[in-house]
Amino acid sequence: MCEANAYIIENDTETLIMEAVDKVEPDEGGIRIVSIFGEQKFIKGYIHSLGLVDHKVYIKKADG
Amino acid sequence: MCEANAYIIENDTETLIMEAVDKVEPDEGGIRIVSIFGEQKFIKGYIHSLGLVDHKVYIKKADG
Repeated sequence: MCEANAYIIENDTETLIMEAVDKVEPDEGGIRIVSIFGEQKFIKGYIHSLGLVDHKVYIKKADG
Repeated sequence: MCEANAYIIENDTETLIMEAVDKVEPDEGGIRIVSIFGEQKFIKGYIHSLGLVDHKVYIKKADG
């Protein structure tokens, strides 16, 4: 399996918001994150950075 | 191995720009993409979307 975990970074802190992320797509002023299990979350933010060897997707909130 | 390949999407066309991507990080008005081999590329653009099960990182150019 080659999915990653999604974290929100805010003030140098990482908060895990979803495991086993498959897709991240732009959606109405933010992004929609979809796991391999079909779980979905909408975040008003954007993809900040990736560390795929560490299985990490970093997301920043739009106003953060 | 759980890296992805990076593609630029432009006019509904995907162009492969780097294989085996590890890190993607913001850098001076664009993003820096680093492969597991240490190869680096700078793109004046941003991470548009991800499809990790398909090993795909989509990048859009800032002016595109």
